[in-house]
Amino acid sequence: MKKVVGLGDMICGLNAPGYLKLIQTDRFDVFYTGAEANVLAALSYMNVPTDFVTRLPDNDIAKAAVANLRKYGLGTSHIATGGSRMAVMFVETGAAQRSSKVVFDRYNTGVCGMKPSHFDWDGIFDNADTIVISGITPALSPDAATTTLYAAEEARKRGVFVSCDINYRASLWSYEDCRIYMEKILPYIDQFIINEDHAKKILGVSAPGDCYQENGLLNDDGCDIVAKEISGRYGPGTVALTRRLTISASDTVWGAMICENGRPYHSRMYSIHVVGRIGAGDAFAAGLIYSRMNGFDPQKKTDFATACGVLKHSISMDFNLVSASEALELAENRDYGRVNR
Amino acid sequence: MKKVVGLGDMICGLNAPGYLKLIQTDRFDVFYTGAEANVLAALSYMNVPTDFVTRLPDNDIAKAAVANLRKYGLGTSHIATGGSRMAVMFVETGAAQRSSKVVFDRYNTGVCGMKPSHFDWDGIFDNADTIVISGITPALSPDAATTTLYAAEEARKRGVFVSCDINYRASLWSYEDCRIYMEKILPYIDQFIINEDHAKKILGVSAPGDCYQENGLLNDDGCDIVAKEISGRYGPGTVALTRRLTISASDTVWGAMICENGRPYHSRMYSIHVVGRIGAGDAFAAGLIYSRMNGFDPQKKTDFATACGVLKHSISMDFNLVSASEALELAENRDYGRVNR
Amino acid sequence: MKKVVGLGDMICGLNAPGYLKLIQTDRFDVFYTGAEANVLAALSYMNVPTDFVTRLPDNDIAKAAVANLRKYGLGTSHIATGGSRMAVMFVETGAAQRSSKVVFDRYNTGVCGMKPSHFDWDGIFDNADTIVISGITPALSPDAATTTLYAAEEARKRGVFVSCDINYRASLWSYEDCRIYMEKILPYIDQFIINEDHAKKILGVSAPGDCYQENGLLNDDGCDIVAKEISGRYGPGTVALTRRLTISASDTVWGAMICENGRPYHSRMYSIHVVGRIGAGDAFAAGLIYSRMNGFDPQKKTDFATACGVLKHSISMDFNLVSASEALELAENRDYGRVNR
Amino acid sequence: MKKVVGLGDMICGLNAPGYLKLIQTDRFDVFYTGAEANVLAALSYMNVPTDFVTRLPDNDIAKAAVANLRKYGLGTSHIATGGSRMAVMFVETGAAQRSSKVVFDRYNTGVCGMKPSHFDWDGIFDNADTIVISGITPALSPDAATTTLYAAEEARKRGVFVSCDINYRASLWSYEDCRIYMEKILPYIDQFIINEDHAKKILGVSAPGDCYQENGLLNDDGCDIVAKEISGRYGPGTVALTRRLTISASDTVWGAMICENGRPYHSRMYSIHVVGRIGAGDAFAAGLIYSRMNGFDPQKKTDFATACGVLKHSISMDFNLVSASEALELAENRDYGRVNR
Amino acid sequence: MKKVVGLGDMICGLNAPGYLKLIQTDRFDVFYTGAEANVLAALSYMNVPTDFVTRLPDNDIAKAAVANLRKYGLGTSHIATGGSRMAVMFVETGAAQRSSKVVFDRYNTGVCGMKPSHFDWDGIFDNADTIVISGITPALSPDAATTTLYAAEEARKRGVFVSCDINYRASLWSYEDCRIYMEKILPYIDQFIINEDHAKKILGVSAPGDCYQENGLLNDDGCDIVAKEISGRYGPGTVALTRRLTISASDTVWGAMICENGRPYHSRMYSIHVVGRIGAGDAFAAGLIYSRMNGFDPQKKTDFATACGVLKHSISMDFNLVSASEALELAENRDYGRVNR
Amino acid sequence: MKKVVGLGDMICGLNAPGYLKLIQTDRFDVFYTGAEANVLAALSYMNVPTDFVTRLPDNDIAKAAVANLRKYGLGTSHIATGGSRMAVMFVETGAAQRSSKVVFDRYNTGVCGMKPSHFDWDGIFDNADTIVISGITPALSPDAATTTLYAAEEARKRGVFVSCDINYRASLWSYEDCRIYMEKILPYIDQFIINEDHAKKILGVSAPGDCYQENGLLNDDGCDIVAKEISGRYGPGTVALTRRLTISASDTVWGAMICENGRPYHSRMYSIHVVGRIGAGDAFAAGLIYSRMNGFDPQKKTDFATACGVLKHSISMDFNLVSASEALELAENRDYGRVNR
Repeated sequence: MKKVVGLGDMICGLNAPGYLKLIQTDRFDVFYTGAEANVLAALSYMNVPTDFVTRLPDNDIAKAAVANLRKYGLGTSHIATGGSRMAVMFVETGAAQRSSKVVFDRYNTGVCGMKPSHFDWDGIFDNADTIVISGITPALSPDAATTTLYAAEEARKRGVFVSCDINYRASLWSYEDCRIYMEKILPYIDQFIINEDHAKKILGVSAPGDCYQENGLLNDDGCDIVAKEISGRYGPGTVALTRRLTISASDTVWGAMICENGRPYHSRMYSIHVVGRIGAGDAFAAGLIYSRMNGFDPQKKTDFATACGVLKHSISMDFNLVSASEALELAENRDYGRVNR
Repeated sequence: MKKVVGLGDMICGLNAPGYLKLIQTDRFDVFYTGAEANVLAALSYMNVPTDFVTRLPDNDIAKAAVANLRKYGLGTSHIATGGSRMAVMFVETGAAQRSSKVVFDRYNTGVCGMKPSHFDWDGIFDNADTIVISGITPALSPDAATTTLYAAEEARKRGVFVSCDINYRASLWSYEDCRIYMEKILPYIDQFIINEDHAKKILGVSAPGDCYQENGLLNDDGCDIVAKEISGRYGPGTVALTRRLTISASDTVWGAMICENGRPYHSRMYSIHVVGRIGAGDAFAAGLIYSRMNGFDPQKKTDFATACGVLKHSISMDFNLVSASEALELAENRDYGRVNR
Repeated sequence: MKKVVGLGDMICGLNAPGYLKLIQTDRFDVFYTGAEANVLAALSYMNVPTDFVTRLPDNDIAKAAVANLRKYGLGTSHIATGGSRMAVMFVETGAAQRSSKVVFDRYNTGVCGMKPSHFDWDGIFDNADTIVISGITPALSPDAATTTLYAAEEARKRGVFVSCDINYRASLWSYEDCRIYMEKILPYIDQFIINEDHAKKILGVSAPGDCYQENGLLNDDGCDIVAKEISGRYGPGTVALTRRLTISASDTVWGAMICENGRPYHSRMYSIHVVGRIGAGDAFAAGLIYSRMNGFDPQKKTDFATACGVLKHSISMDFNLVSASEALELAENRDYGRVNR
Repeated sequence: MKKVVGLGDMICGLNAPGYLKLIQTDRFDVFYTGAEANVLAALSYMNVPTDFVTRLPDNDIAKAAVANLRKYGLGTSHIATGGSRMAVMFVETGAAQRSSKVVFDRYNTGVCGMKPSHFDWDGIFDNADTIVISGITPALSPDAATTTLYAAEEARKRGVFVSCDINYRASLWSYEDCRIYMEKILPYIDQFIINEDHAKKILGVSAPGDCYQENGLLNDDGCDIVAKEISGRYGPGTVALTRRLTISASDTVWGAMICENGRPYHSRMYSIHVVGRIGAGDAFAAGLIYSRMNGFDPQKKTDFATACGVLKHSISMDFNLVSASEALELAENRDYGRVNR
Repeated sequence: MKKVVGLGDMICGLNAPGYLKLIQTDRFDVFYTGAEANVLAALSYMNVPTDFVTRLPDNDIAKAAVANLRKYGLGTSHIATGGSRMAVMFVETGAAQRSSKVVFDRYNTGVCGMKPSHFDWDGIFDNADTIVISGITPALSPDAATTTLYAAEEARKRGVFVSCDINYRASLWSYEDCRIYMEKILPYIDQFIINEDHAKKILGVSAPGDCYQENGLLNDDGCDIVAKEISGRYGPGTVALTRRLTISASDTVWGAMICENGRPYHSRMYSIHVVGRIGAGDAFAAGLIYSRMNGFDPQKKTDFATACGVLKHSISMDFNLVSASEALELAENRDYGRVNR
Repeated sequence: MKKVVGLGDMICGLNAPGYLKLIQTDRFDVFYTGAEANVLAALSYMNVPTDFVTRLPDNDIAKAAVANLRKYGLGTSHIATGGSRMAVMFVETGAAQRSSKVVFDRYNTGVCGMKPSHFDWDGIFDNADTIVISGITPALSPDAATTTLYAAEEARKRGVFVSCDINYRASLWSYEDCRIYMEKILPYIDQFIINEDHAKKILGVSAPGDCYQENGLLNDDGCDIVAKEISGRYGPGTVALTRRLTISASDTVWGAMICENGRPYHSRMYSIHVVGRIGAGDAFAAGLIYSRMNGFDPQKKTDFATACGVLKHSISMDFNLVSASEALELAENRDYGRVNR
């Protein structure tokens, strides 16, 4: 089986336990995360070979991060060593009407200083089916942006499928404009994931006002308009929109649509009681890639990837530890929530 | 006050904390459980004397299990020592659209090797009102099946009331067919607990298709048909059906009905945000037994036992630590959910 | 900026983790609380200077309590030392249909023996805008009642605004009748917080029966009648009613109204998935005080204070760690529940 | 087998985890303890039947205490219900040169108000071999002192052996002089446990100055003089002295001697790396009682009881969970400290 | 670099936290272990490629075990799937005069049913330098014994170095005599690890009585006699003796000697304050293998391997997470115990 | 009472629990530390007013750090807000022959960008007796070095006593040579703390070779030579040397000497079983300052400050929570290690 490659940073995530605020806790639950690594971890749990490419400093906390990638089966043989620190983030989990909060500390990490020359691209792309990138890594530094673009170009050159989630984080885009960068890289992207809010804010693509439902959600038609416009304007054969109606930090409605070769496909919208919503989009991306590698038709792809994202909401920390059969079972609408013994 | 006897296995339950998956956790919360012990623990918390009969190996983890039974007031003086291992199970708690998972390891435990001759039946049945058995223990081994049947026969012989919950676990019934066994033991059973799904699958008793509501639940009439048929065909004076509509692993609708001397009685259906749903049926069984020992009329019995089962959903681990007055308060529909100080 | 003073007892709160019952746990989460301290902690988190007045014994657990007040920014320089013990309470958190339970142990604490002569009132009231008292402290002992009344009289004399939440706890009022005491102190109170149930039970003030909605909640008109009657009969310029519809221990509907100079103002009613509901009223009181100190108009005051109380439900333990801008954002009905990164 | 009875108070012990100070921790490990209950728990673990007599309030934390006694096999059927609170203590564990600290809160507990009429003495002493009392309970209140004295007298009257550890706690003796009380009760005591420091301070019994070793320990001869003097003056057939040389809070040297019918017997002195030193004396007392009930000769009794006390230092919390065979193995000087698998 | 192969079982280890006894704890720390896997984990941490061969059931707890092996870098591609359960053990950690205790539950695991035909031996031995076996796995079942012997023979045939630690556990050898089995397999072993106690008990090889020191330790000459005799009689070119003087469960003296081609080499004896002594022998074995693969001379090999074993005593759970440079630093007697920052 | 000022950085310390290595843990204990803050915290616990000066970013983790300073009573009103990140460090605690390890991440913190103009020096020095600086802060950046020097000059100008611990960390001194900087700042320092190793390495001050004891410790005469030389060459009226003999990470011997106005004073050397050795030097510095503010004579100062440092070894995390009376009791050689109840 061919492998999926990912390029991005690793973060040491420090989670205040339960619903404690940072000021209250004297313990953190630690986990290791990163948008692109999350996608690969979800794929690895579904038995897809992966190879995660990053640059980490030579210290014991970075070693712990790599050990954690290995634990979840990610390939780690192309991780470069360098730089003097690793990204950290502090997380407090919201509930009810209180939002979750993330304090990022991603300055000057190994990845911020990575250059194309740090990596063995032939080895990385050897036997690769897909590469996973995101809009987070290029936001970190000019070097990271250059290397991400380089990777996308190389992938295209070698016939490797390029999947990108824009994952827009306003607080990270400081040195350059996100739109300018995205427009440079979009020509190399085969599959592009975004939501309607970022489509409007970053790419200036929006649906007419009457496509919004009373609850604030963009309706099916509106999604189709946005996705087709992006696909048409920038070229990705697959454009996927994730759709979230936040009831509160504890409850959410979530689903997705994809536009594949100009035709739209819609998932059901799920009502979800949230355990861990961070990483739902990454799980969805993994579901799309898995679907493509397994030849699912576009509707099944939409349903399967959405089920992956839905199930992620039930899982703590950022890796989606869901097997393909579990996601299929939900996608195909069979019973769920019972005790399996 | 007369005592309630239970016969069954004890399991060392190992729970991944919170909603962690087994692969994620490096700690387990440990608890000691078993369907029949759960019924007795619930009765003991309501101040009913109990005596739990089992067979455990001579080691320190079995000692811990017995200490835990004592903690919750169960009589432990008829526990036989023997066999070389104790049952273990690993549990991960589902949430939202993700089901809970149990990895059973119940092979060759002390109970699998128990024989009627291991126990002092005169002492066990001395001053006993009721014996609690279930469909789990006979599934474990031929010896366990023989001893369970022996206990039911002995109880009948001595005028002790026999309560049995079928508790069907497909993965445990390997050496024999569940239906064949149940049909052998049902003649000795006075009170039989089952749900409509198992009634159909195991006993072949079902209601007409038009008795199913749109949400998949069997309606009141359908329940009456099933319960009456079981009572009529196999003889138990009391047949109880528990009724569950699983919204998700986090939310459920739950209630029950009983058929007593051929007449049906229905509880309200409760909407429940789930903390610990395992053991709800055992708590319900305890409620039925408590009701009978205290002379509740059939409707009060139904309401009380259902309230016991409902409250179990709010309690971690498998023992229902609810007093009779707390259950009555809910059954009688007074205020709940406020802070008691 | 002027400071807010509070007078009351501190409790060492011992919380069974998660949803465990007291009998199940071998660990407690410890926190330090008290109705009046909770109000001050919420104000301190919104950058209002505070000074908490209490009397604590000279031992290491009282030192820990004071350190915790300092942590959250409360002034502690007027805490008297004396008495031989500190209040303790054991808490188990309810869920679903099971109520939370508190075992109080508040006998003979430092505050029970406090006398006006223990404190430097000139220092306490120096630069004070408001004093926070409640109906809990006077219930603890005659000395505590005398000192609370003395503080209210002194405040009135010095032009300091007096805010009082009746916080009725039936189990604490043993030595005197709550109504008799409240009628002695109400003339000195400028802002009075109560709910309709306590208004009826303690003050004998109620609305006509047809003001109750089917779900048991008193409607807007009924609230207006009650609040106006209290304001008119006893004199507080501001009377606030908190309104709660308990769906279960896990879900609640909550809001408030205030009657300011005879005119009623109503908040939205919020549906809330509960993390920590204790202290919601204290957070609301803090919101009212903050609003007055910042000159909010009565409707904004109502909305802001209600948002404070709503957000408290999302926070563990009893201090409301919510900034003024977070509460304003919710009050003004913008998006909430998203991840802030 | 005959049972051992104990009379005393139960305490809810709250332990700062590890070596944290009270000001540092936001969690407590909870355990239930009391000098006399500790003796019975140690005996129960060695399969001696026991019956613990106390008076506890009717609340959920007292229920948890009783459940914990049951867990460790203590008889609880003669526990009276009454009073309004349970004793609490906060513990921080010392290390190296820093002492452990206990903040007691034992005021006005159920036991402080106990009277002889609260208990069924015929049931308590039925089939009893020994009663365990200590110098802690009479220090708590005049009622507790009266009841303890009453129990000793009743025991003597019924031929039940009376074992008493003086367990002198200066901070608890407030209402009466310890010596006066001890001299009233000593005539009813058959076995008396004390150390040389308390013998001097409370009873005024001491050895000549040249009996002290350079390290401050009283030597064997000195111990003999003290024990014989106590036995001769007050009458107990067995007087036992525990002997401790505190190297630091982490390391200790510990042993014991007993004077039986006027003849001294000495144990080895053990060097011990301390895990939990509280309760060593109680474990020693249990060892003496077990030895007597099993007819050990005085030297074996001394060695066995000392081994019980030594092993207690390796166990967390206050119950000595050591089997008779484990203590014997150490007493008889075989190998220890290896891994048993 | 060539790889090291290991063949053995995996155990789910359940550790009572701190020094709690099994009866006291309601949590377990979970870890995954096995004598042969421990050796490979230590090698992997020193950057030696490894491949762990075992047979595990198809369930989620076995998946967690494999993930844990991957985390520490072990190769897992030759793990067979089969059998219905995984080994479990419950551990309580001793302290002071109290021994550690292990409750094994290793009956009928996947490995008990493994056969040579389950594995791809060509793949396993491809590029292998060494295979690690032990006396534990053959004790588990006749099939496990057969497969272990088969692996040793195959290794010899292919020129792969065979390292075996006898790891004698009396409680596991039930179906066959350990000596008979060891004498069958010893001809295929190149490096054999044992202690003098097992040499005497199992192989009947001992030193004259006057070789024992007063503290019970066999002296250098005695070790030489034993090791040479084993090497001479059974053939392994390297025979290593580990030497332990147990002061208590908290303190130990530990060292080793090896006999290489008939000549003895001795390490220093270290005084060690124990954190985790289980796995010291496995760490030592890894040190020997590492030394051989890196061409250390016999004295350096002895010192290095001993340092590995010493450092293991400072590490929790069973994998020795020590780099080669850390072990070298200790072996070469430089400063240790300072803070590295 | 006059206050003590400190200037330095705050670190968010992340401690692997117990003796776990970073790669093993999925939780961190969090604490907030910094050499200069540690000194102030120790003083604050001894009731000395303090004011901690630093520069922290405007985020929730920095808020948590400040709350923690407040908890321990430090003045925080002169903390500047600025910069984009806070220092982080990951700590694993050594044991036995394994050293502790710290992974620093102190790049580009708020303090690295601090300038004299960020602070209100008049307010800072108002009523100040002493300022605490260290060799750590100037190592962080040129700005931090400039500001530290500025503070020392200002203090000297205003007659405020300057205490400095060189606290040499090789890994932090990258942009400048430590010796060059220290020689610039030493003229402003009144009290200087160092150990003999750093005296030699950084200042080139050493004792003759025959002053070293066999165990590697510099003897009393050697210490006197070094301290006098530093005092004479650079001017501080008080030079203090801390003396440590590391037995292992678990056991240490520790003491100190001071040279005051040219005359040496020596403490006892203590054998210590280590709980938390980080911060012992800071506790010692606090002891010196406390002694001077309370007019202790030089020998008492030496003994008291040493006792502070000794007791720190028994306390978890970096703040020395020891009262003056506890330190005095140890200094004056009374009993220690007993249980205080």
